[in-house]
Amino acid sequence: MNIAIIGATGLVGREILKILFQKKLIKKNNIYLYASKASENKKIKVGRFEFFVQELCENNLIDKYDFALFSAGKDVSKRWANVFVKKGAIVIDNSSAYRRDKSIPLVVPEINGKEAENKKIIANPNCSTIGASLPIHAIKKHYKIKEIIISTFQAVSGAGKKGIDDLIHNTKNKFNYNIKNNLIPQIDVLLPNGYTFEEDKIDFELKKILKDKKLKISATCVRVPIKNCHSESIYLELDKTPNLNIIKHAMKEVGGMTVLEGMKNKLPMPCLANNCNDVFVGRLRYDTANANAISFFISFDNIRKGAALNAVQIMEFLISRETKFKKALQN
Amino acid sequence: MNIAIIGATGLVGREILKILFQKKLIKKNNIYLYASKASENKKIKVGRFEFFVQELCENNLIDKYDFALFSAGKDVSKRWANVFVKKGAIVIDNSSAYRRDKSIPLVVPEINGKEAENKKIIANPNCSTIGASLPIHAIKKHYKIKEIIISTFQAVSGAGKKGIDDLIHNTKNKFNYNIKNNLIPQIDVLLPNGYTFEEDKIDFELKKILKDKKLKISATCVRVPIKNCHSESIYLELDKTPNLNIIKHAMKEVGGMTVLEGMKNKLPMPCLANNCNDVFVGRLRYDTANANAISFFISFDNIRKGAALNAVQIMEFLISRETKFKKALQN
Repeated sequence: MNIAIIGATGLVGREILKILFQKKLIKKNNIYLYASKASENKKIKVGRFEFFVQELCENNLIDKYDFALFSAGKDVSKRWANVFVKKGAIVIDNSSAYRRDKSIPLVVPEINGKEAENKKIIANPNCSTIGASLPIHAIKKHYKIKEIIISTFQAVSGAGKKGIDDLIHNTKNKFNYNIKNNLIPQIDVLLPNGYTFEEDKIDFELKKILKDKKLKISATCVRVPIKNCHSESIYLELDKTPNLNIIKHAMKEVGGMTVLEGMKNKLPMPCLANNCNDVFVGRLRYDTANANAISFFISFDNIRKGAALNAVQIMEFLISRETKFKKALQN
Repeated sequence: MNIAIIGATGLVGREILKILFQKKLIKKNNIYLYASKASENKKIKVGRFEFFVQELCENNLIDKYDFALFSAGKDVSKRWANVFVKKGAIVIDNSSAYRRDKSIPLVVPEINGKEAENKKIIANPNCSTIGASLPIHAIKKHYKIKEIIISTFQAVSGAGKKGIDDLIHNTKNKFNYNIKNNLIPQIDVLLPNGYTFEEDKIDFELKKILKDKKLKISATCVRVPIKNCHSESIYLELDKTPNLNIIKHAMKEVGGMTVLEGMKNKLPMPCLANNCNDVFVGRLRYDTANANAISFFISFDNIRKGAALNAVQIMEFLISRETKFKKALQN
């Protein structure tokens, strides 16, 4: 197969390559790395493999791709996604370009992988949405959800390499305020209704992924001085008194989560989630004030499950489903 | 007046001394600093004043105190508070020793200062509680509160100097996990109901301060890698659709808060709240999912308003109310 990674020099692009290597998908396939002109001929190593980055331009494209994984911002996606589609690729787009497009599925494979089948472009949700979607989906299988209240603790890696540099060097190149020893309760632009666009993404995208336009969601998104891994404090009001054992069991069945409850001293934390695939779920408890509510806390690697891993998992899902890929892999 | 500071070498004790200096209460009064034997004869400077720390023992006590401000943990408070009371002191205790004692008021001066009048021992609430209590009290003046959901972002200074050292040196002397580039969603011990004692403090203490046993409160307390200043994401469901202007006005009337709404780009953040007296309130907005709910975000100096300043403000409140102190200050 021919797999293109667009935005290959960014944090997510590099992580995609790393995951393809870890999943032994590099040896079997041809990988093409694209980025802006500034990155041309940059060398990226992963394991014993070495790749050169090409400028994303017509001259550097080959005739046929199977998959194109985009992670270079929405403008690049809008300009180039259909170019790759025309060359046969299934585009998995990590930008916000297509997430709200009704004809394009927004996919977390454990939840709605099937929606990706037979599509040319598939949107990867926003990082904070992916993390929250898995436990909420598991709970929704057994209970009607009346309300979701989320506060996020988002790592600087979510803002790319510049965000990490701001934390390490105490600069203000990416963020408007120093992030070291500080937090910033505003991610992305402020909307007229007082919410930020990041908070609106959680609202819109959870509704789309969980196929429930009536879900009541209120999110507060906060950037915290942590290098990698997002965390979220989540409160859910349900239609009846839930049973935590049923919920824990449902989370294990859905997959993509490690439920830490019952493991002594195990807490969902960035130091635990870093470099891992699963969303770690812990602090799961009955609300003391409201018999129909529960609270829990999650932590997950936002660059992996929040972006790169989810994209690769969408690809894997399609490979496992579609005969043409199965055949290609057998050869 | 004779003012004793017990636990004078800790973060809160030193801040109390600094605040007494800033409020020009040092020149007019006699200040006695007490700590453990290990700190005896330590010198603490504030402005042009220099104080020596004495060991807290019977021999070092004088005959009469007017105020004794305790911040040396609950064991020291339980052992020594009544000793100071017998020597005429009004004890303002920053530990958890007396907060749940029905005969002892739990005081945030802007809310229930009057309860401190004619009492021998007054309890200072937990830091996270103080910050949340002010805006919630302001809202409660105009609306019945159906539910409060809080997620905290608590600085390491709340765990004392050792907490700060763990962040700076990436050690694990105070915390069970590295706190640098990490967060810990457990503060204080875990209770059988799945909440932590820190979360239970917010629940119990808010009910006591706001005199409303039926308040429904659910808190999630999280330690974050920030040197100083606690922040909190607060969601409130009210009994009817609120008016944000009424709420903002009420906050200004209650005092102790700076309402940032309407100030372009001003967000409640540790870098803004550090070394300030007020609780900064921002991101105030109508909930998009629930017409009767609002969300907001606060940041405040946990060592000042969350501890030292609130204690000194209780003292100031009593001085302004009681004739004997008025006379003493006039002399």
